[in-house]
Amino acid sequence: MVANLDKIMKPKSIAVIGASTKEHTIGSDIMKRLQEYKFNGNIYPVNPKGGIIEGLQAYTNVLEIPGEVDLAIIVVNAKFVLDTIDQCHEKGIKGLCIITAGFKETGKEGAEAEKQLLAKVKEYGMRCVGPNCLGVVNTLPEVRMDGCFAESLPERGHIGFVSQSGALGGGILNILKDLNLGFAQFISIGNQADVNAETAIEYWENEKDVEQILLYMESIQNPANFRELATRVTKKKPILALKAGRSAAGASAASSHTGSLAGADKAAAALLKQSGVIREFSLENLFATAKVFANCPIPKGDRVAIITNSGGPGIMATDAVCEYGMQMAKITDETKEKLRSFLPSAASVKNPIDMIASAPIEHYKQTLETVIADENVDMIICIYLPFLGLKDIDVAKALMEIKAANPQKPVIGVFMTTSEFFAKLSDMDVNMPFFMYSEQAADGLNRLNQQRLWMERPEGKIPCYDVDRAKVESIIKGALKEDRAQLTTLESIDVLQAYGIRACKYGLATNEEEVVNLGNSIGYPVVMKMTSKTTSHKTDVGGVVVNIKSEEQLRKEYKGLLSRLEEKGLLEGLEGVIIQEMVKGSREMVCGIATDPQYGPMMMFGLGGVFVEVMKDVTFRIAPLTDVDASEMIKSVKAYKLLEGARGTTPAQMDQIQETLLRLSQLVSDYKFIDELDINPLLISEATGEGIAVDGRIKVRMEEARKALGCAESCACGCC
Amino acid sequence: MVANLDKIMKPKSIAVIGASTKEHTIGSDIMKRLQEYKFNGNIYPVNPKGGIIEGLQAYTNVLEIPGEVDLAIIVVNAKFVLDTIDQCHEKGIKGLCIITAGFKETGKEGAEAEKQLLAKVKEYGMRCVGPNCLGVVNTLPEVRMDGCFAESLPERGHIGFVSQSGALGGGILNILKDLNLGFAQFISIGNQADVNAETAIEYWENEKDVEQILLYMESIQNPANFRELATRVTKKKPILALKAGRSAAGASAASSHTGSLAGADKAAAALLKQSGVIREFSLENLFATAKVFANCPIPKGDRVAIITNSGGPGIMATDAVCEYGMQMAKITDETKEKLRSFLPSAASVKNPIDMIASAPIEHYKQTLETVIADENVDMIICIYLPFLGLKDIDVAKALMEIKAANPQKPVIGVFMTTSEFFAKLSDMDVNMPFFMYSEQAADGLNRLNQQRLWMERPEGKIPCYDVDRAKVESIIKGALKEDRAQLTTLESIDVLQAYGIRACKYGLATNEEEVVNLGNSIGYPVVMKMTSKTTSHKTDVGGVVVNIKSEEQLRKEYKGLLSRLEEKGLLEGLEGVIIQEMVKGSREMVCGIATDPQYGPMMMFGLGGVFVEVMKDVTFRIAPLTDVDASEMIKSVKAYKLLEGARGTTPAQMDQIQETLLRLSQLVSDYKFIDELDINPLLISEATGEGIAVDGRIKVRMEEARKALGCAESCACGCC
Repeated sequence: MVANLDKIMKPKSIAVIGASTKEHTIGSDIMKRLQEYKFNGNIYPVNPKGGIIEGLQAYTNVLEIPGEVDLAIIVVNAKFVLDTIDQCHEKGIKGLCIITAGFKETGKEGAEAEKQLLAKVKEYGMRCVGPNCLGVVNTLPEVRMDGCFAESLPERGHIGFVSQSGALGGGILNILKDLNLGFAQFISIGNQADVNAETAIEYWENEKDVEQILLYMESIQNPANFRELATRVTKKKPILALKAGRSAAGASAASSHTGSLAGADKAAAALLKQSGVIREFSLENLFATAKVFANCPIPKGDRVAIITNSGGPGIMATDAVCEYGMQMAKITDETKEKLRSFLPSAASVKNPIDMIASAPIEHYKQTLETVIADENVDMIICIYLPFLGLKDIDVAKALMEIKAANPQKPVIGVFMTTSEFFAKLSDMDVNMPFFMYSEQAADGLNRLNQQRLWMERPEGKIPCYDVDRAKVESIIKGALKEDRAQLTTLESIDVLQAYGIRACKYGLATNEEEVVNLGNSIGYPVVMKMTSKTTSHKTDVGGVVVNIKSEEQLRKEYKGLLSRLEEKGLLEGLEGVIIQEMVKGSREMVCGIATDPQYGPMMMFGLGGVFVEVMKDVTFRIAPLTDVDASEMIKSVKAYKLLEGARGTTPAQMDQIQETLLRLSQLVSDYKFIDELDINPLLISEATGEGIAVDGRIKVRMEEARKALGCAESCACGCC
Repeated sequence: MVANLDKIMKPKSIAVIGASTKEHTIGSDIMKRLQEYKFNGNIYPVNPKGGIIEGLQAYTNVLEIPGEVDLAIIVVNAKFVLDTIDQCHEKGIKGLCIITAGFKETGKEGAEAEKQLLAKVKEYGMRCVGPNCLGVVNTLPEVRMDGCFAESLPERGHIGFVSQSGALGGGILNILKDLNLGFAQFISIGNQADVNAETAIEYWENEKDVEQILLYMESIQNPANFRELATRVTKKKPILALKAGRSAAGASAASSHTGSLAGADKAAAALLKQSGVIREFSLENLFATAKVFANCPIPKGDRVAIITNSGGPGIMATDAVCEYGMQMAKITDETKEKLRSFLPSAASVKNPIDMIASAPIEHYKQTLETVIADENVDMIICIYLPFLGLKDIDVAKALMEIKAANPQKPVIGVFMTTSEFFAKLSDMDVNMPFFMYSEQAADGLNRLNQQRLWMERPEGKIPCYDVDRAKVESIIKGALKEDRAQLTTLESIDVLQAYGIRACKYGLATNEEEVVNLGNSIGYPVVMKMTSKTTSHKTDVGGVVVNIKSEEQLRKEYKGLLSRLEEKGLLEGLEGVIIQEMVKGSREMVCGIATDPQYGPMMMFGLGGVFVEVMKDVTFRIAPLTDVDASEMIKSVKAYKLLEGARGTTPAQMDQIQETLLRLSQLVSDYKFIDELDINPLLISEATGEGIAVDGRIKVRMEEARKALGCAESCACGCC
């Protein structure tokens, strides 16, 4: 079922249940706002005392309302909410916006009440915003609903805005007004019992009036669903998100604040990136980016031209453009010639184009017009510093005139002038964004470019490889039978191989003769690794010996290991030793899986060996991966240069490494009970460039695994 | 001589040479500004036509002025400037501010004129601001000089501001006015023929009226002098700098703009850091930080308390505080109890302290007062979101009242309200900074904390070790004699050892018997390394063989090397092989020196081996290093964790590594002609934790070296 919030967001009639005549109460404010903003339909105040509220006849009960009601805005005390919902149902109301607080956010009892509330909403086939929210707004002229109690009346525009924090949502509406940043619809989702950010995204997907979506989130309710929706919608319109609760301390504040579990930030970061959501880290940047998207087309490339009347800000803009990795456009000779024909000789016609301080309005117009026409230019920053006798607002108007005639490329104005200028602008219709500082303009262009790259990015596929599930299941069942969550190295490598992951040749030996036979059959040099049910960090006990070159050396090393283990009292757990093909290579990568309690299995890839924890050159993505995700993971770490073959090493087989990640992704998607999985190192073979799993560790969540594999917990008979 | 700019910055009388009656010219504007701002002294317009200018009698020549003149502001055409200076000298004027453009920035001819200008200034014992500048301002009531042509009149305050860009300087003055950020003195240094940023810093060092210094720079003229001055002054008052021209493209724009060579950004970054200068990357941040320093004391620690009436911004502030590495203050039980006594039960008295949306002004006052008194709290962010019936400006006034009674700790207000609020504030006297967003407040606190840490940081000493200079000089002379800029590995290691740097035991052998003898005397295992005058990247030709365990193996490897080189035609340049003690260790660091053309020798330290270029985990400082610099370098790289002894390795001898850096610093300070020096790897011995130079490469600038060491270029007789 596609999310349809029309009854809530485009109602023809609204009942305000809990409307009040008492000043500075929500029940009074909501009534005032609906009327002040001239709601395009009937408003029915409901109050048990009846009377006249804001000039309208109040009904003592929703059932008394004569006409049909699409939306009930509920502001009654929490203890009356459930009964009110029953009455709304009786009246045939399908849309609810419950502003009343006192539910999940207050503790166990409140959570129970919220559960009942949701059950009723579902049972009655309603949709519900809230509880514990600020309300809803739609500025569409045919609707004109200001159903919230923020300080200021809404400004018309084309942003869809969802806020998880009520009070903050109100603050933001004020600021949007102040910034002349209009919006189409606003939903304060509050405790998001029913409607949440995902519902809004889905509802706005095909809503023409909403051209970009802004989210303030403290948690993501259903990450998989969010990912699917956002990935699709961001291809059509930008989604900008501020996800708070990044720090451990912040997350704990978030969880006490909204009563929802805040996900770890790494998982959130991965999810947003994979979904094409533009993540901002401050409201200031969120609004700045929204202003840019509201006034700019998506560019065709990343080549930026800078026009200025002062060197300094031109340099600062150049610095910022380059730091974002965008290109300084190479102005064509034709353009240069044209510019030279009217600019003074002291002007610079190279990019940044410096018209010098005395540039009159006419030069601004001609220069912008000429540069927009340059085929080497995708985006433009136009800088103005006050100069004797030139009025900032006149320059801005002149630029907008040129922009109106040439709407195809983004142009951002940087006007280092007074706030009075920006105040004037906010009373005007503008067709391009203006900022005070160069860096803000570069930041905006970077976001446009990011959206361009995302829209051009292939969608990617989640491949499905032919794998040996039976083998994997039998290995895991074997471990479960022994009550082990942790698979042995041998078992881990067998699982990987069953999923077609290239691991090195090996065998298990439990006595000296087996050891030597294996060594001889694999061929020297070999590696010897202990495998134990009790010791998981093998290197700490000298349990790994490499480059064993002969039968004689192998015998010696095996004996040495046994005596070391005996000395430390660790001989007991020893299962045997793995004799393994020695893969020669100096480049150690790592890949693996961590499970985020909220976001599920998360894949990691990066530089391995002893550097994993020190350098932290790793990247994360939520599973399952698409082929594009996997390819991006590989390219996004610094160690990618090593894979490419730095300093004369064999270039790695990127396709094969990508496939390794995809097969791993399939493994953890098939068996969601896998809690941890590490391949460290994934050694890059110097001979072939293959990534070869040389070591593996897998840990499962036993209870879940038993359930999934159909083993009874008490089963000790070997049936599974 | 201590910089004294009193004649320019605190003149008792000013001649405006080139004063004009023509509207919108600099000669007219300067006259207007001086009078509008009520300059506290005599103003003498000078114009060859005489007449009345801005109501004052104009003199046709500066010599006609009846009284004494301290400062001449010169706005005449460039071709008259030199003569004007002569006349000023004749008149006995000691201070010049040359606004006129047309000098160094226009090319060779202009540069020549500027040279002559400077020669006159020096000869006459004058000080001169400019040419090609915007002017000078001093807002001190006893002076009241607005000697520049920015759009708006100055705002009184305690910032000293230097701008290298004239137009930008004007823009900034407008913005400062707009932000209600007053300043004490402003110097537009323009082409900085005489007075530059360093002069201003020195002049302001003991100027009480200047409490913080702001710099806009595109280049640093004399890095060593800047470093010495700034290091001293930043211990007394903060210096904030925006250094533009960071990107290659930006730097090229900077160099065409100001006619000065822009230094590489890495060197500038190191210099500013070592000097305790707070570097900002945008004007927006520069002003925000200035606002914070203007209204906050330096805190005693980094523990931050957050007070809010809304959860969301509290979480965002927490995120930002933690991301800056500051601590969330642990509120004492006593404070919590006090807070609970008046806050509602739904409030949270843990940090962030959430008074909930309905908090009245009284709660803001009581909460702030209580939290300021908490001994666990060093700094405070106080957040306000609009709530029904509460006026933002009233809340701000209440907070400032509490702050006035408790000035000892920094308090920053975050008011997520409209720009009208900030406009109101700018007409008031404020005693704490207010921002719109949480992140800005956290950013401000972080800067305060940075200044605290710098002021607490020990000054550090540049040690002087007893070294063998004669040996170094003889080695380098030997190379020069052979016309080599690049020392051989052997020579390089000898140089390091002469400076007391721990390098591994070694010897040079040129035939098989020597090789074997050396191996036997050093003791196995050894490393064999080719040393060649033609091949510098030894690993690329298999020129390094490690872990040679016996005489037999050594013979074999030596023969192998010779045949490999022969095959590649590289046998010619082979000097021999170094047989070297094999230092066992897995941790490879790198240290070395690069020379920046403007900043001189720059030291590098970080993770070595094949990772240097891939991971770029390195840090830079300008030589010479103090002990504190060296210690900070070591701690600032990620690989520091490896040095501490990650995963069971031997902890490195930090003191010894620090000494290695300091000895290197002494080496390049003694021999400034050393162009490049690399120790890669500086291997951390697993046995002792020492950092041991296992390989070394040194390159000199031959011409300079010959000059410094007294070798004639033509010398081929072996005299040197």
